[in-house]
Amino acid sequence: MNYKIRALREKLKSLNLEGMIVTNPVNIKYLTNIDAKTQGILLITRKENIFLTYTMYIEDVNKTLTIDDEIIVADMRDISNEEAENFFVFCENIGFEENHVTYEQYKRLKQKYRINNMVETEKIIEKQRMIKDEEEIQKIKKACQITDDCFKHLLGYIKEGMTEKEVALEIEIFFKTHGAEDVSFSPIVAFGENSAYPHWVPGDRKVQMADPILIDMGCKYKGYCSDMTRTIFMGCILEDIKPVYNLVLKNQEYVLEEMRSNYNIKTISRSVEDSFKLNNHTLIHGLGHGVGLEVHEIPGINQKNESFLKENMVITNEPGIYLPGKYGIRIEDTVLITKQGCIKLTNSSKEYIVI
Amino acid sequence: MNYKIRALREKLKSLNLEGMIVTNPVNIKYLTNIDAKTQGILLITRKENIFLTYTMYIEDVNKTLTIDDEIIVADMRDISNEEAENFFVFCENIGFEENHVTYEQYKRLKQKYRINNMVETEKIIEKQRMIKDEEEIQKIKKACQITDDCFKHLLGYIKEGMTEKEVALEIEIFFKTHGAEDVSFSPIVAFGENSAYPHWVPGDRKVQMADPILIDMGCKYKGYCSDMTRTIFMGCILEDIKPVYNLVLKNQEYVLEEMRSNYNIKTISRSVEDSFKLNNHTLIHGLGHGVGLEVHEIPGINQKNESFLKENMVITNEPGIYLPGKYGIRIEDTVLITKQGCIKLTNSSKEYIVI
Repeated sequence: MNYKIRALREKLKSLNLEGMIVTNPVNIKYLTNIDAKTQGILLITRKENIFLTYTMYIEDVNKTLTIDDEIIVADMRDISNEEAENFFVFCENIGFEENHVTYEQYKRLKQKYRINNMVETEKIIEKQRMIKDEEEIQKIKKACQITDDCFKHLLGYIKEGMTEKEVALEIEIFFKTHGAEDVSFSPIVAFGENSAYPHWVPGDRKVQMADPILIDMGCKYKGYCSDMTRTIFMGCILEDIKPVYNLVLKNQEYVLEEMRSNYNIKTISRSVEDSFKLNNHTLIHGLGHGVGLEVHEIPGINQKNESFLKENMVITNEPGIYLPGKYGIRIEDTVLITKQGCIKLTNSSKEYIVI
Repeated sequence: MNYKIRALREKLKSLNLEGMIVTNPVNIKYLTNIDAKTQGILLITRKENIFLTYTMYIEDVNKTLTIDDEIIVADMRDISNEEAENFFVFCENIGFEENHVTYEQYKRLKQKYRINNMVETEKIIEKQRMIKDEEEIQKIKKACQITDDCFKHLLGYIKEGMTEKEVALEIEIFFKTHGAEDVSFSPIVAFGENSAYPHWVPGDRKVQMADPILIDMGCKYKGYCSDMTRTIFMGCILEDIKPVYNLVLKNQEYVLEEMRSNYNIKTISRSVEDSFKLNNHTLIHGLGHGVGLEVHEIPGINQKNESFLKENMVITNEPGIYLPGKYGIRIEDTVLITKQGCIKLTNSSKEYIVI
């Protein structure tokens, strides 16, 4: 059995669960490597692991799975009611994903598989996903490298008069023609005053002399995501922006120096918030988040998180300051946590860049 | 109050519901025009309509809403527990979206708003969405027109040796540079034997002489989707493909002639299945589906659907035949149902096209 499913089984055992129904396609991808677009559910039963899917996916699923996975593949429509009821027969407690299963699905699953007690598993698989293995790290590294290459390309590409939409499209094109299968999220490209909105959707605003240009982008490589933000400038940098840029950068670099395994997430987040406050600014969003098969994963790096960084977590470090009506500055790297410190996986320059 | 919310309120009343919690962002977009990327929930209470969201969305939401909407906007974080408990005070039955709300959310909503009885609403809003108004139809028409233009462009663009991925990317670029805000789904581009997979994901296969080229694509215009499939040919058409192509086309055109309001969905789907069977083929997927804010909406056009077509539904008509290891043929239009018949909204040629 592959080590990810084995680890999950051990965890289930420790929680007194006799099985689990996995419905979140991203969690199924994590455990089995089955493409997340495949419709199906994974049953972890006492005896075996069963992936139930539909006719049109079966060939592809069988190509993906290896003998190591020890997963039985079956057509959902070939399973009789009796067989369905037998998967968890004599079991008392079966786990499910209460953050993914709809209320309707919950009722249907409980009835179809005749489960006595469906037990909430509190992101059990998402928690396992927080710690990346070597193969996962290599994929994220590659996604980050393509992102750095894209940034370099954009420095030569962006010209006065271009729209945010044009630049966003160029990012998508670059990713898809340089080895990434997709963007990890719709790129944020914000010019001038639009950069003051952390989640700006690119529009028809044209880039003008002295505009800050905020670019937040990432791609997917073999399913794994990257995430990076840089704020650069068209033609020149207004003098009053420089102290704000420097404050964001100083904090971003301070965090890079401090982060390591067993470091308290709350403390590190608070240090940035305090530094901003001292300078009459506010951190209006989280300092960062986990990155992996999804671009936003746990752990959230924010003041509410009482837990600790762990070796081989991959997270973002993205402080930002936003001055409505004027501009915003955000600087973000994807980083790997190690025992000794952290390793930046995105490596584009954070010096003032004027194009 | 806008007519969509008013109609929903009347429906709720007829079901003895004293309010509803709307969580599905697409349904919120339908009722309010608030962008589906906005995080928030819509409370339909006895007294008022309230959209609860987060600080960063408030400005945008207020810009979107008009005085006609009669929707109060509030910051989720400004609502005290007491206020939350008051929204549905003295109410017995409050509707919710059991197909969208997760089990976890269900529990949280029930507790936070102190709801006595949360009642399943069985896609009440999705059912309302099936019938499009003039404004919605105009947006879908525009999305379909951009799709036709894209198809025309591709006929000159695709050359021997190009990969499926290259063509898929060109489709995305065309849409985003010709007035659409996005694709309505990742385009399917399948060459040769790959066209036998109805849900093929474009890869590195290069188009060769005599290949069928199956292209299934659509875009979004002001939130509304289009969906069209054509199967064309590189250089020549193998003779044994022609009768299969003709059979698919004959059925697709027969359906176009038959479809009108009050027509039985099951009957029309069965007629295609029977015609395929007579020729030793099988319809392995639904004949079609609703199209609107989402590219796949109800009604599903298939043998299991006992209901009737209605005036101003927009649906697809997409029979296909798939011969594993050889090729597949699918021909699809997006159509508007009227009293007298149906109107094709996608209008690209369905004759043999050899490029």
